[in-house]
Amino acid sequence: MLVSERRFRVEWGDCDPADIVFYPNYMVWFDASMTSLFALAGLPLPALFASHKVVGIPVVDVKVKFLAPSRFGDELRAVSTVTEFGRSSFVLRHQFFKGDTLAVEGFETRVWTAHDPSAPGRLKSQPLPKEIIDKLSASGK
Amino acid sequence: MLVSERRFRVEWGDCDPADIVFYPNYMVWFDASMTSLFALAGLPLPALFASHKVVGIPVVDVKVKFLAPSRFGDELRAVSTVTEFGRSSFVLRHQFFKGDTLAVEGFETRVWTAHDPSAPGRLKSQPLPKEIIDKLSASGK
Amino acid sequence: MLVSERRFRVEWGDCDPADIVFYPNYMVWFDASMTSLFALAGLPLPALFASHKVVGIPVVDVKVKFLAPSRFGDELRAVSTVTEFGRSSFVLRHQFFKGDTLAVEGFETRVWTAHDPSAPGRLKSQPLPKEIIDKLSASGK
Amino acid sequence: MLVSERRFRVEWGDCDPADIVFYPNYMVWFDASMTSLFALAGLPLPALFASHKVVGIPVVDVKVKFLAPSRFGDELRAVSTVTEFGRSSFVLRHQFFKGDTLAVEGFETRVWTAHDPSAPGRLKSQPLPKEIIDKLSASGK
Repeated sequence: MLVSERRFRVEWGDCDPADIVFYPNYMVWFDASMTSLFALAGLPLPALFASHKVVGIPVVDVKVKFLAPSRFGDELRAVSTVTEFGRSSFVLRHQFFKGDTLAVEGFETRVWTAHDPSAPGRLKSQPLPKEIIDKLSASGK
Repeated sequence: MLVSERRFRVEWGDCDPADIVFYPNYMVWFDASMTSLFALAGLPLPALFASHKVVGIPVVDVKVKFLAPSRFGDELRAVSTVTEFGRSSFVLRHQFFKGDTLAVEGFETRVWTAHDPSAPGRLKSQPLPKEIIDKLSASGK
Repeated sequence: MLVSERRFRVEWGDCDPADIVFYPNYMVWFDASMTSLFALAGLPLPALFASHKVVGIPVVDVKVKFLAPSRFGDELRAVSTVTEFGRSSFVLRHQFFKGDTLAVEGFETRVWTAHDPSAPGRLKSQPLPKEIIDKLSASGK
Repeated sequence: MLVSERRFRVEWGDCDPADIVFYPNYMVWFDASMTSLFALAGLPLPALFASHKVVGIPVVDVKVKFLAPSRFGDELRAVSTVTEFGRSSFVLRHQFFKGDTLAVEGFETRVWTAHDPSAPGRLKSQPLPKEIIDKLSASGK
């Protein structure tokens, strides 16, 4: 499977009065990491959504373990990959490292989603295009 | 167990270009719902943190299922309660309803945490005070 | 002019390691206060955007003074009103009070905006409908 | 004056249902840009706050003009510098460019702030250390 990696700094506004990252921000970073993974695969999401008439890849299930806290100024390394493909969904694993320490590990199940042509304003899952499965399955990083 | 309930409106800024709630915001609301539950129990968190020298109740594990999307202007009803107590941790269940529909269900494991007196800048779990267990276990809502 | 008022609690996640509200959150609350003002005027924004084919009311200018800090658990009272109408824009004043103290005062210039029919993907200001000016100008609150 | 520059991508979760950046996020980025400017000056904020017993550099006044909208996937270039020093405050100018277009320009007045030793829980402005003025005034970038 393709594996993306990005590094970023924990900002002041990401942290709460306990001086550690307010935990929903990790999910904000999961989302950005997915965008990086698709870009690495040659599938930039803004263009991909437009060309496939997809409105997004909403999360239907998430499971996260927080193993070590992070603070303002810490540098995190985010490592993301697909661990499983379904017909219209896939599972992403995100691991955030602080130095060599695994600080956060999460699994998101996401669904390839378009507007429902038969019901305006409703969303409907779509079969995951083969091109996407192939490119996210490429070896190496 | 004590059960808290609060209603709130989904705001414009909570939603993403797919016109639905950007999912980390649900965890932001979980946190606010915990604050409401403790307030209902007669344990307002700002005062409680100060009197117990606690720096927060960080999440070590979260599992969430997203069953139905919500949009700008939707009114959500958040129902929260403890489902399990450990020595220094507890599990919170949060259910968000849109009308009669269960839209989101999540479980957070949280740890009662103070500064570690033997290691400045480090955090350390603390035994959950009996008063807190008793008050969050009260029947009715 | 119509004046809306709403009260809300400062949440844990709204605050930063200095134990005070991280300031962009005040602008998040400005946005929610505008939604409340329009709702009070009988103009719920989700329906209004759909019926007028408007995509939002983006801010083109904002000026804010922060007079007193707020903390986790503080209750704020947000008072919002229009202070000026232009052809396709208007100025909103937001005042946040902590008890009797004016804590924050801000002015947003916002523009009534639709998709540009002659340039897909571009936005274009629209004349502000007379109904909206009339309803936001109503006396009393 | 020293000038910092950083580039970043607009993420999916930064944008609202109008498909453009929800405007409080620009202020979140102002804060991160200040951190980058201080780091460039050899003054990493986490260490600086600890060594000077400063609790943060809160904003007391902000003025922003939004000249062009940005969207998911856009790359922004943030250029930040001090434009004025006071006794305990300074003014930061942040300019965000999309290609060659100035998209956002903002001015923040920030105050060097510590705990008030005579009133626990209160904040108090402090004279800006000469070392900080000197380093942020350095020429070049």
